[in-house]
Amino acid sequence: MPEPLFDLEPPRPPARLRFDVDDPRLAAAAWSRLAEPGDVVAGALVAHLGATGALAWLVDAQADPVRALRGENLERLAGGVQRETLRRLADAVGRWSQRLASLDPRRELRVLDRYGGTLLTPGDPRWPVALADLGAAAPFALWVRGDPDLSAWSPRSVALVGARAATSYGERVAEDLATGLVDRGFAVVSGGAYGIDAAAHRGAIAGGGTTCAVLAGGVDRFYPQGNDALLRRVVDTGGAVVSEVPPGSAPFRQRFLSRNRLIAAATGATVVVEAARRSGALSTARRAVDLLRPVGAVPGPVTSMASAGCHGLLRDGAAVCVGDASEVAELAGALGADMAQHRPAESAARVDDPRAGLGPDELLVLDALPARAAATVDSLARTAGLPPRRVVAVLGGLERLRLARRDGARWRGAARPR
Amino acid sequence: MPEPLFDLEPPRPPARLRFDVDDPRLAAAAWSRLAEPGDVVAGALVAHLGATGALAWLVDAQADPVRALRGENLERLAGGVQRETLRRLADAVGRWSQRLASLDPRRELRVLDRYGGTLLTPGDPRWPVALADLGAAAPFALWVRGDPDLSAWSPRSVALVGARAATSYGERVAEDLATGLVDRGFAVVSGGAYGIDAAAHRGAIAGGGTTCAVLAGGVDRFYPQGNDALLRRVVDTGGAVVSEVPPGSAPFRQRFLSRNRLIAAATGATVVVEAARRSGALSTARRAVDLLRPVGAVPGPVTSMASAGCHGLLRDGAAVCVGDASEVAELAGALGADMAQHRPAESAARVDDPRAGLGPDELLVLDALPARAAATVDSLARTAGLPPRRVVAVLGGLERLRLARRDGARWRGAARPR
Repeated sequence: MPEPLFDLEPPRPPARLRFDVDDPRLAAAAWSRLAEPGDVVAGALVAHLGATGALAWLVDAQADPVRALRGENLERLAGGVQRETLRRLADAVGRWSQRLASLDPRRELRVLDRYGGTLLTPGDPRWPVALADLGAAAPFALWVRGDPDLSAWSPRSVALVGARAATSYGERVAEDLATGLVDRGFAVVSGGAYGIDAAAHRGAIAGGGTTCAVLAGGVDRFYPQGNDALLRRVVDTGGAVVSEVPPGSAPFRQRFLSRNRLIAAATGATVVVEAARRSGALSTARRAVDLLRPVGAVPGPVTSMASAGCHGLLRDGAAVCVGDASEVAELAGALGADMAQHRPAESAARVDDPRAGLGPDELLVLDALPARAAATVDSLARTAGLPPRRVVAVLGGLERLRLARRDGARWRGAARPR
Repeated sequence: MPEPLFDLEPPRPPARLRFDVDDPRLAAAAWSRLAEPGDVVAGALVAHLGATGALAWLVDAQADPVRALRGENLERLAGGVQRETLRRLADAVGRWSQRLASLDPRRELRVLDRYGGTLLTPGDPRWPVALADLGAAAPFALWVRGDPDLSAWSPRSVALVGARAATSYGERVAEDLATGLVDRGFAVVSGGAYGIDAAAHRGAIAGGGTTCAVLAGGVDRFYPQGNDALLRRVVDTGGAVVSEVPPGSAPFRQRFLSRNRLIAAATGATVVVEAARRSGALSTARRAVDLLRPVGAVPGPVTSMASAGCHGLLRDGAAVCVGDASEVAELAGALGADMAQHRPAESAARVDDPRAGLGPDELLVLDALPARAAATVDSLARTAGLPPRRVVAVLGGLERLRLARRDGARWRGAARPR
């Protein structure tokens, strides 16, 4: 008898599912309960067998793992069946099976219904297609309260993320960015936390725009409770509150980290407004970098620990420095369409600056002109280091600009308008 | 008869120089008076003929420009003599000649002597060799008060530059960076202005280190006068005050811009601590970029105009984001030797630091408070990025802690215990 490939759970009585396994919508909803968000083994299984096929396979595998892991389905899934693939699948079957017995997505859909919500599955035209970039880590379904059309997310949306422990500075900047972005036709996407997340939603709503909160737990219970009223307003103002886990799911810490990948993948750019060095918001930025999405970071005082994570992103070159909505729009928008107004740093020269249009010789003579006692051309020539003839010519121009005044054969500076 | 190549000043009686034209030291000093800083035509002339040869040529050219501009010296200078080169030289002769009659570098050296100063010329072993990167724009001489050994500048020095109109935040960061850098064996280099320049020198002196001020005018008169005592301390504490123009030269605006190229070229890295969008400090950063020197920028609140220039540098990718001395040392230092320690950032504040117990809003307002001219609540609110009502509340607390002082309807920072 050959050595066993792996330890398997002992065979169990086959689970009797209480719903139609062949309904793709129910099967997708089922997988969003069975597997934790971002479970790439489940993702690969569903991608290869379909949600219904994968579910049927799991029911078989739970009852008789050895047969399921040697069957032709598995060969289809894994191509050449490798020891490591088998081991991961065997582990996964054990994990998923824990939730198989109590599984009933119809119940969770009834809860969603009660809140007027919608279940989106990957084939739906309202599904945010950019999530496909997550590959096997893409969600199986999205549970949505509010406007379920998330198809516009990716082309024109920005994730504004940051720390719960934000400063008033950070919250103010998040609000201003959100307002400015919805003004420019972008949707705002964030989490549901206090601090930067909440400020981003407030700013978007204040700007009359659309904002979406992606939660780590189920959408039946807005978390944290203190943001319940705000998240209701998100729903009521044409936005959406979204989760990839079904109603009744608790917002575990691990689910926050998984949730961050959705925010990064679904949006055109991610901006970290304020984040301490180990803030979870940085994981959203890292996910966005991995997904080749543009990332921005808002700077703050180097003395403020709440900005240290943003500065780290800037130092690493992982993020671009952004400070206002036009700069964020440039980052997220179609190239050219949203270019932040070009502000050449030293370019000169505000229109009201009398020195603005002057050439180097003019500036030398202007600097040489005494404010009080008038000076001769020769003395100006020595001071400015220019030939007297040149000084005379320059003085004429400065006089016309009312920057120099003649005083007999001598010259002085004119009071400069400010 | 061929068409004249250019308008020439009419021939004049040859200038009778009052000193030995063959003394290379005097000739270098003479050129630092004759040509404005960064005059590349003069630089090329001196590079090709030597300071003494170029001076003798100028004396001839002033008396008979046509002969000088066709002579064999010129051919040596320009290789193939091109019309444009001739034109530029003809203009330059006119410029330089204005100062030829009154020229006497011995007099300026006597003034320097009176201040215990030293004239450095390019061959001197104490000359900062990195200035050679300026090519024809390199200075002809350096007039130094204090320690004349500037040879250590480039390998281990940092330029800390920024706006005169700095916030308390900017000044504090400049001081801290300077102290931390001298701790790490770096020399600090800056200008002599109020604001960031002065704070950099203060911080370096407080750290017991060496700091150098590069002035736009002569070192006989420290400018601005309000920094006279500080610049004397720079000299008295083993540092140096340096200029490329001789004693008696006024700090014209154009000379500030030229001076910036010296600061950028002489140092291992340039850091802009605070700068508004059109601040002159940005020109130092641009020069450093042109010279392939590393450039750092300190971020600040995006609501603070005093940091907008720094953020522009970060956005353009012209500068690296730096927030403390270890990060600056990493930028400027030998690769590897000064790698910024990986910091679990939220390390605790020093117990004796009056900022230690303050919350984030308190710190923002404290940083926004100007050290000198008092500011209105509205202006503080803009700088700190906080609502005015919050600023008023915070100011009350800071006043009780003796960190803020009321001045009618305005507020300023209180002297901080050191």
